[in-house]
Amino acid sequence: MSTVGFIGLGAMGLPMARNLVARGFAVRGFDVRTAAMDALAEAGGARAGSAAEAARGAELLALMVVNAGQAEQALFADGALDALVPGGIVVLMATCPPGAVERLAERVLARGRRFVDAPVSGGVVGAVGGTLTIMAAAPASTFAAAKPALEALGSKLFHVGERPGQGAVVKAVNQLLCGVHIVAVAEAFSLAAKVGVDVNVVLEILGGSAASSWMLHDRGPRMLQAEPEVTSAVDIFVKDLGIVLEAGRETKAALPLAAVAHQLFLATSGRGDGMADDSQVIRSYRALNGGAPEP
Amino acid sequence: MSTVGFIGLGAMGLPMARNLVARGFAVRGFDVRTAAMDALAEAGGARAGSAAEAARGAELLALMVVNAGQAEQALFADGALDALVPGGIVVLMATCPPGAVERLAERVLARGRRFVDAPVSGGVVGAVGGTLTIMAAAPASTFAAAKPALEALGSKLFHVGERPGQGAVVKAVNQLLCGVHIVAVAEAFSLAAKVGVDVNVVLEILGGSAASSWMLHDRGPRMLQAEPEVTSAVDIFVKDLGIVLEAGRETKAALPLAAVAHQLFLATSGRGDGMADDSQVIRSYRALNGGAPEP
Repeated sequence: MSTVGFIGLGAMGLPMARNLVARGFAVRGFDVRTAAMDALAEAGGARAGSAAEAARGAELLALMVVNAGQAEQALFADGALDALVPGGIVVLMATCPPGAVERLAERVLARGRRFVDAPVSGGVVGAVGGTLTIMAAAPASTFAAAKPALEALGSKLFHVGERPGQGAVVKAVNQLLCGVHIVAVAEAFSLAAKVGVDVNVVLEILGGSAASSWMLHDRGPRMLQAEPEVTSAVDIFVKDLGIVLEAGRETKAALPLAAVAHQLFLATSGRGDGMADDSQVIRSYRALNGGAPEP
Repeated sequence: MSTVGFIGLGAMGLPMARNLVARGFAVRGFDVRTAAMDALAEAGGARAGSAAEAARGAELLALMVVNAGQAEQALFADGALDALVPGGIVVLMATCPPGAVERLAERVLARGRRFVDAPVSGGVVGAVGGTLTIMAAAPASTFAAAKPALEALGSKLFHVGERPGQGAVVKAVNQLLCGVHIVAVAEAFSLAAKVGVDVNVVLEILGGSAASSWMLHDRGPRMLQAEPEVTSAVDIFVKDLGIVLEAGRETKAALPLAAVAHQLFLATSGRGDGMADDSQVIRSYRALNGGAPEP
């Protein structure tokens, strides 16, 4: 598996493709933005004129696209799957609903190729540093074949199951907690501010208590800024908590906290703040309750 | 402030009273259970025959009772407040609704005594080790007078405001996050188990990702046990999230995540599991969704 096609060279995909090049893989990348392909070429990769060209003759095809619809478009409508060598491996790394992943995997297997469901967490920092957490689901032999490439991308590689869709579920579970934790911090700050307690002191107290979370430490300080740097946008959680709820619908599981958290992100986006940093879901609490901490 | 009355010698109160003795305070304690007073006497404290006797001649009276109703009973009906020296300080350390704390404080001040609203977090471990987090609200001079006693009880002492009730709010905010985080872990595990992913692997992945929280690390493993040791009971969160929602009602703030989390704890208690470890709120997800991780 030394020849890799890479589709989707965005904020995550480009550094991931670069890390494959750095580990000695021959990488041919495709993105609709030519600047992204130029950046890959500078790092020693090759440009492709289409999704099919990126996949042509490759033994492994990584997809770091926005959603399942884009993966389907690249693989089937744009011909990338048929361009992949017989027995080649499709590695889907985007965050997608488990059911959509299962259906894509079936269609890939039906064409004589293999499939790894391998969503990631760790953000741009993890993508650049090659320290992503990768939640891979595939039959053991397929996982073993893809492993060298996956190890170039992430430092925490988990084989979570044999069945495509199980990686997507673990990623959904991860995003459920991340999304609920962000909204919980906003709700907590809203109550504190409403009654006139200094939210900076509250943040310090909570950060050292049983109330702490990774998100409290990361997003908490940014909630107290008016226009914080955007490290991940509100609309990403509109999408990801939507995927969480879709995973719940597929399996008929009630997820009441995730449903409430999704509503808060959705309303934030609906008021025009979808591109703001996701910490700004606190603006929904300001709209609701007033008195929430004004930056 | 060398003479301290201490009312409420339970799992938290007894080690707290002992820590005051160890720091050189003359402590007279009262509890309805005589065994608790015996234990304090063994540590060098004194027994009192009533709440009033514990307070008699004391310069500071600490209340580590179950709720605001018990504090009111001890202070007013049982005569502890009038037994305290004029200008003496009542330190209310139980978790109570902010509005109830404000009303108690007014009545204490009207009788010529001072008041510190000083709830704690850190549990029995923090009470024994003298490492509690203390969220104190009082006028600066009152806080300064109570400080030596508070420093005997906690290592993280915060002066969060001048107005009684503000400490209670910070504690409510703390419990909001703690309660929501526990339920969020249960909800995440329920989704993972429902689709047949190994929840132990999920726990390992989440614990090292942006999804992590103090509660995930502490309660997560106990959720996967059938009858874990009870470190804090379901009914504590039925009460504490009830206080969170009461704080929201008093100030007219919507707290949708806390409201949902409370419902899940409430239903767990309603099925007869109120004395189980609070991690067992996951039983409500098993009841709802089935397929949740069976220990």
